[in-house]
Amino acid sequence: MRILVVNPNSTRHMTDKIGAAARRVASPGTEILAVNPKEGPAAIEGYYDEAMCVPGLLEIISGTVDFDAVVIACFDDTGLDAARCLTDRPVIGIGEAAYHMASMLSNRFSVVTTLARSVPALEHNLTRYGLAARCARVRASDVPVLELERPGSDACGRISAEVGRAIAEDRAEAIVLGCAGMADFAASLSAEHGLPVIDGVVAAVALCEAMVRLNLQTSRRGGYAPPVAARDETRAAAT
Amino acid sequence: MRILVVNPNSTRHMTDKIGAAARRVASPGTEILAVNPKEGPAAIEGYYDEAMCVPGLLEIISGTVDFDAVVIACFDDTGLDAARCLTDRPVIGIGEAAYHMASMLSNRFSVVTTLARSVPALEHNLTRYGLAARCARVRASDVPVLELERPGSDACGRISAEVGRAIAEDRAEAIVLGCAGMADFAASLSAEHGLPVIDGVVAAVALCEAMVRLNLQTSRRGGYAPPVAARDETRAAAT
Amino acid sequence: MRILVVNPNSTRHMTDKIGAAARRVASPGTEILAVNPKEGPAAIEGYYDEAMCVPGLLEIISGTVDFDAVVIACFDDTGLDAARCLTDRPVIGIGEAAYHMASMLSNRFSVVTTLARSVPALEHNLTRYGLAARCARVRASDVPVLELERPGSDACGRISAEVGRAIAEDRAEAIVLGCAGMADFAASLSAEHGLPVIDGVVAAVALCEAMVRLNLQTSRRGGYAPPVAARDETRAAAT
Amino acid sequence: MRILVVNPNSTRHMTDKIGAAARRVASPGTEILAVNPKEGPAAIEGYYDEAMCVPGLLEIISGTVDFDAVVIACFDDTGLDAARCLTDRPVIGIGEAAYHMASMLSNRFSVVTTLARSVPALEHNLTRYGLAARCARVRASDVPVLELERPGSDACGRISAEVGRAIAEDRAEAIVLGCAGMADFAASLSAEHGLPVIDGVVAAVALCEAMVRLNLQTSRRGGYAPPVAARDETRAAAT
Amino acid sequence: MRILVVNPNSTRHMTDKIGAAARRVASPGTEILAVNPKEGPAAIEGYYDEAMCVPGLLEIISGTVDFDAVVIACFDDTGLDAARCLTDRPVIGIGEAAYHMASMLSNRFSVVTTLARSVPALEHNLTRYGLAARCARVRASDVPVLELERPGSDACGRISAEVGRAIAEDRAEAIVLGCAGMADFAASLSAEHGLPVIDGVVAAVALCEAMVRLNLQTSRRGGYAPPVAARDETRAAAT
Amino acid sequence: MRILVVNPNSTRHMTDKIGAAARRVASPGTEILAVNPKEGPAAIEGYYDEAMCVPGLLEIISGTVDFDAVVIACFDDTGLDAARCLTDRPVIGIGEAAYHMASMLSNRFSVVTTLARSVPALEHNLTRYGLAARCARVRASDVPVLELERPGSDACGRISAEVGRAIAEDRAEAIVLGCAGMADFAASLSAEHGLPVIDGVVAAVALCEAMVRLNLQTSRRGGYAPPVAARDETRAAAT
Repeated sequence: MRILVVNPNSTRHMTDKIGAAARRVASPGTEILAVNPKEGPAAIEGYYDEAMCVPGLLEIISGTVDFDAVVIACFDDTGLDAARCLTDRPVIGIGEAAYHMASMLSNRFSVVTTLARSVPALEHNLTRYGLAARCARVRASDVPVLELERPGSDACGRISAEVGRAIAEDRAEAIVLGCAGMADFAASLSAEHGLPVIDGVVAAVALCEAMVRLNLQTSRRGGYAPPVAARDETRAAAT
Repeated sequence: MRILVVNPNSTRHMTDKIGAAARRVASPGTEILAVNPKEGPAAIEGYYDEAMCVPGLLEIISGTVDFDAVVIACFDDTGLDAARCLTDRPVIGIGEAAYHMASMLSNRFSVVTTLARSVPALEHNLTRYGLAARCARVRASDVPVLELERPGSDACGRISAEVGRAIAEDRAEAIVLGCAGMADFAASLSAEHGLPVIDGVVAAVALCEAMVRLNLQTSRRGGYAPPVAARDETRAAAT
Repeated sequence: MRILVVNPNSTRHMTDKIGAAARRVASPGTEILAVNPKEGPAAIEGYYDEAMCVPGLLEIISGTVDFDAVVIACFDDTGLDAARCLTDRPVIGIGEAAYHMASMLSNRFSVVTTLARSVPALEHNLTRYGLAARCARVRASDVPVLELERPGSDACGRISAEVGRAIAEDRAEAIVLGCAGMADFAASLSAEHGLPVIDGVVAAVALCEAMVRLNLQTSRRGGYAPPVAARDETRAAAT
Repeated sequence: MRILVVNPNSTRHMTDKIGAAARRVASPGTEILAVNPKEGPAAIEGYYDEAMCVPGLLEIISGTVDFDAVVIACFDDTGLDAARCLTDRPVIGIGEAAYHMASMLSNRFSVVTTLARSVPALEHNLTRYGLAARCARVRASDVPVLELERPGSDACGRISAEVGRAIAEDRAEAIVLGCAGMADFAASLSAEHGLPVIDGVVAAVALCEAMVRLNLQTSRRGGYAPPVAARDETRAAAT
Repeated sequence: MRILVVNPNSTRHMTDKIGAAARRVASPGTEILAVNPKEGPAAIEGYYDEAMCVPGLLEIISGTVDFDAVVIACFDDTGLDAARCLTDRPVIGIGEAAYHMASMLSNRFSVVTTLARSVPALEHNLTRYGLAARCARVRASDVPVLELERPGSDACGRISAEVGRAIAEDRAEAIVLGCAGMADFAASLSAEHGLPVIDGVVAAVALCEAMVRLNLQTSRRGGYAPPVAARDETRAAAT
Repeated sequence: MRILVVNPNSTRHMTDKIGAAARRVASPGTEILAVNPKEGPAAIEGYYDEAMCVPGLLEIISGTVDFDAVVIACFDDTGLDAARCLTDRPVIGIGEAAYHMASMLSNRFSVVTTLARSVPALEHNLTRYGLAARCARVRASDVPVLELERPGSDACGRISAEVGRAIAEDRAEAIVLGCAGMADFAASLSAEHGLPVIDGVVAAVALCEAMVRLNLQTSRRGGYAPPVAARDETRAAAT
C-alpha cells in the first residue's frame, strides 16, 4: 500500500518530520510518500495561506501516478474537498482524522492550535463536519508554526500549559493537537496530563490504511464528482 | 493484537458470521475473538432489546482477560458508554464506526436499517455523536434482523431497493448498512449502485486496529471514569 | 390513581425518601408505590451504573400488575426508552420532568448535579430531548449521591454554593437539582436564592397525574412499539 | 385553585368552548375563569393578529385580582413572554404545553394546524423552545379557525386526513392539534388513528395544576423581571 | 425614496436623535420620516414593553400613506413580523440589520446592550434569525435606555468597558451596539478599540435603500400574507 | 465610490454580463470595475473549480490599487475568507449577499442553482453562515453554468420549473438564484411566480454601497488578520 502524504506548505524539513511520523505508525508494507509543493506559503496560518497552497497541493495529487490513499497534512484540512474530486481513493485531512478519533475516545475534546488567527477556520471545519458539539473549545497557544521547528524553542512547554487549561476550564476529556508540526509532542503530553492526546498526522495515516484495507473509496456521486472534463476546451473557445 | 468482538444478542450463528467478516479484514497478526452472551434477546430491535442485552455484554468485557480493543457488534451501539467505563482500551460501536467512515468519504450519507422501530434509536445516536447533519435519512427496509439469517430470503433485494430510494430521494452519496447482519451485502450493493456502501463490523475492526497501532486509549477523565469501586460494599451496609 | 415510582438503585432508604417526597405532592386519591430493585448498584453515578440497573428496573415494571403511570426516579432517566416499550401508560423520567418544567418557568436554567462523571450523561439527555439550548450549564457539586443520605453532611451547603455560582456565572433564571437525593433541599434553596429550584421527583409525579387525568398514553407507534413477542421462541430454536 | 384561562381573540363562543374543555379536565376544587378581550381580532391567524391581541390579553392579566396560574389559550402562545413579566404565577401557553407533553409520550410528533400562514410562527416557537428537533413537521390543514366553530363543517374530516398524512409521511408517533378550537376532536382522532393526539388547552390546564401543587413559580430573574415601575412617570416628564 | 423610521417607544427626543442619525447616512434624495407612537412605553426594556408598543407601531405603518421602506428602530426588532404582514415594502429591524452586517464583516461578533432583562429577547431573535452561532455573546452593560439620553452620563465609558471585555473574553471580531440610543457612540468606540462597531439604525437605513434600489419586496406568501380582511365583519356577527 | 467586482472564472462575456447587471443597480457616482482572471476554470461547478480560481482572484485584489469594496461574483463565495485577509474594505460574496437579503424578506427561502455537484458546497456555506435553518432546500436545475450563456437555450424555462417546485414542495416564500449567470432572469421569474427572486450580484453591489456609505470595514482581528508579512523571507531561509 502506498500513501501519498502532502504537506501543503513549502517547508521541506516540516515535510520530512511529517513523513518520519507517518512512517513510524505505518504498517509493514505501507510506503509513505511525503511531499510538498515547491512554491507557496512556508506555513499555513489562516485563510490566505490556506487558499494559496491549494493549487500546488492539487497538482501534486494529479501528477502522482500511483497511490492508494492521500493524507492532507495541514490541520486546516486545506483543499480537502477539491482533492476528493480528483480521485476515488480515500483522501483524509489530518484535522478531520483527529476530530473523528477523539470523538470515539472521549465525550468531549479541546483543540490546542498555534495562532488565534487560525481558530475560526478550525471552528468552521468542526461545524461543517458536524463535530462542533463534541469540541469544548479551540484554543490558541500563540506558538507560531515555524517556532515548532526551531531548536531550543519553549513551544512544547507553552502547549502543555494550554493543555492544562483545557482540562481545568473546558472539562476536556481528550486533546487534539492542532498543527502538523506538533506531532512529536503527543506522547509526552499524554503521559504528563493523563488523557488521550491525538496528533492528526498519524491518525490520518492509520485511517487511510483502514479504508484501503476495507476497499472503501471516496464517493463519486454529488459533490465529489470528477471535474467537468471538457472545461478547458470550452474556455478556449469562449475567450 | 487481539480484538474482542461482542455480538450483544444471543444468536450464535450471527456471531459466527460477524466473526468471519471481522477476520476477513483483520491484519495478519490480529486475532478476532467473537463472542455473545449466553442469554438475552435473540435480536436487538428497539430500545427494550438494547437495554436487556447490556449486562451480558458488560460481563463479557469484564470477564475477558486479555484484549487490545473491543468492538460492540450491534448497530445501535448498545452499551457503548458503559463499556468504555470498564477499560482504557478503545471500544468502538459498529454504528459509530460506519458513520465516521461515511463522513470522510461523502458529503452526506443515508442509513438503511431493519425495522421502523429501530429508527429513533439510530437517530438519537447520530444526534449525540454530532453526525445527524451528515446523515440525510435513516431508512427502514422492513426486513427483520433474523430474516437476514434465513437462507432463501429476499432480504438483499429489499435492501437494494431501499438503497436505490436513498440515492434518488435523499441525494445520498454513500450508504451505511444499519445492522450487523447485513455485512455480507456491502460489496455487491456498492458494485450495483456505484457508491460506497459501508458495513459497521469491518469498519469497527479496522478502526480498532488503527487506534491500537497509534497507542490511543479511551479517556479515563470525566464521563468514562471507572465505576466507583467501594460501591458494592456501601450498598451491603445500606440495605 | 396509582403511580409506580421506581428508584433504579438498590438503596432502600433513598427509595423511602423519594416515596415520601412523592406522597407529599400527590393529590388525594393518588397512591404512590415506591420500589427499588433488590440487587444492582447502590447509587447511579455514570454510564456503567446506569446500564446495570436497567434490567432490574424493567423487571419491576413488567411484574407490577396495576399502575396508571411510572416515574423513573433517577436523574439520568435510566432506561426510560426501554420502559416505554413495556406499557402504554405514561412513563416519566425525573430528569426530563424537571427540564420541561424549568423550560416553562424561565428563559434558561442550570443543572446542579453530584459528580463530574455524571455530567456527560445529563448533557446527552438534554441534547436528545432538544432542551440543551435551554440549559446554560450542567454543574457538578462534587457531592457523591450517598453523601446526600449521610446525617451531618455539609451537602446542602455545597450545593447552595454551586447554585450561587450558576446564578452569577451562567445567568441562570432557574435551577434544576440533578439527583433524586436532593429533593429535600429544593424549597430552602429556592427561598435562599430567590429563583425557582426544581426537583425532578415531585415534577415527575405531578406530570404523571396530569397525563393520567388527560387520558394521555405513551405512543405505541415507531420507537416505543412493544418488544417483539415471538423473540424468545425464535432464540430457543436458533441456539 | 383558580386558573385564569385567557382566549386572546375576541370570539366569545370560542372562549366558552375552551372554558368547557378546561373544566372537564380540571381537578375538583379547581376553578376555571375563562375570559377574552372585548376587542381585538376575532381569530388569530398569523403574526398581525397575534400582535394586536396582546395588549388586551395583558390588561386582563393585570386586571384580575386573584388567580394561581394563567393559561394563554391561543396555539401561537401569543404574548407569553410579556405575560410572564406581570406575575410570578405560572403562565403556560397551550402550544408549549402540548409540545412538552408530546415530547414525553413519543420520539417525534407532528403538528396539524389551521392555515399555512400560521406555520412559520409555530416553527419559530418550536425553535425557540428547543423542541424543533422533536417535531417532524408543522402541517396546515387549510381549515380556518372560525370554520372550526361552524356547525355542519367538515373540519374534523379534513383534520383527520392531515393526521393520516402525518403518520404516513412524517413517521409521527404523536399528533399535536395546533389550534385551541380543535380541542373537541382530540379523543376521536386518537381512537381513529391509534396514537396520542394532544390538545393544548387541557394540557396547559393540567400543567398549571401540577405547577401550583408543587408551588413552582415563574422566575423573576433576567428576562421575566417585572416591568420597570418608574417608567410612566419618566415618560410623562420626557414628552 | 422615503423611509419611514418608527421608534416604537414614545420618547420624542430619542426619535429625534434616531432621525438625525438616519439622515446623516441617507443618500441624497432619500427622505427620512422619523416618528413614534404618541402613547406607550417610554423605553423598551424587556418583553412587556416590547408587546405594549406594537399596536402603536402597526397603527403608524397602516396610517402612513406613502413610503418605500420601513425601519423599526428598536433593537428588539419589536413587531417586525406583524409589520411585514401590513406592506410589501421592505421592513427592516435595527437588530437584524446590525447582525446581518456584522456577519459579513467578521467571523464572530458580540452584542453590547443595556439591561440584563433584555438579553433573552435578543438571544431569541438571534436563534430565530439563524445567527446565534455567529454571535459570541450578548452582554448587558447595565446602562438603562434613558440613561443614554441623559447629558453628563458616563454611559459611553461603561459601554466601552464592556466592549473591551467582549474583545478579551469572547474573541469578538466585531461589536454590535444593542440599543437605538447608542447610535452616536459607534464611531468613537470603533476608533478606540480598533474593530467594527455597528449601529443598527444606520445599518437598517442603508439596507432599506439597497432593497428599494433593487426593487426587492417583502414576500406575500406564507407567514407574511396580508391579514384576513373579512375578519372584523366576521367578529361583528359572531359576538 | 469604486467597487471591484471579480468574476473568479475566466469567461469574459460572463464578466461583461455581471458588470452590466452591477452597473444597472449602482448609484450615480459608483464606478463598477468588473474583471476576471486571465487563466483558470471557465466555469465554477464544484469544489475543484472553486479551489483553482482562488489564487487568480486574490492576485486581482492584491494588484488593484484603488477600490472601496469588493464583490466576489461566484455564487460559491469562492475565496471569500482569504480575500478578507487582504483588505480592510468590505468584501461581499454574491451567495451570502443573496442569503442575507432573502432572510430579511421571507420566513424561508429556497435556492435554485445549476448542477447537483454544486449543491453540497452551497449547503456548507449556508451552515457556516448560520443561515441553513432559513433555507428550505438547495435545488439543482441541471442547467450547466455555460448553458446560461448560450443564445437560444431553454435555461430560463427549466429554472422557472424548478422555482415552481420550490414553492409547491418547500413552502418557499422567496427564491435565491444560485449562479451569477442567472442575474438576468430575476425580474421575470419574480413577476411570473409572485414572490421575491433574488440575484446575488446586484444584492452584493447594493450591500457594498451600504457598507461603504456607513464607513464599515472588514475586521482585522482574529480570522481576518493580514497574512504574516515576514513569511516569504522565512521560507527562503528555510528551504
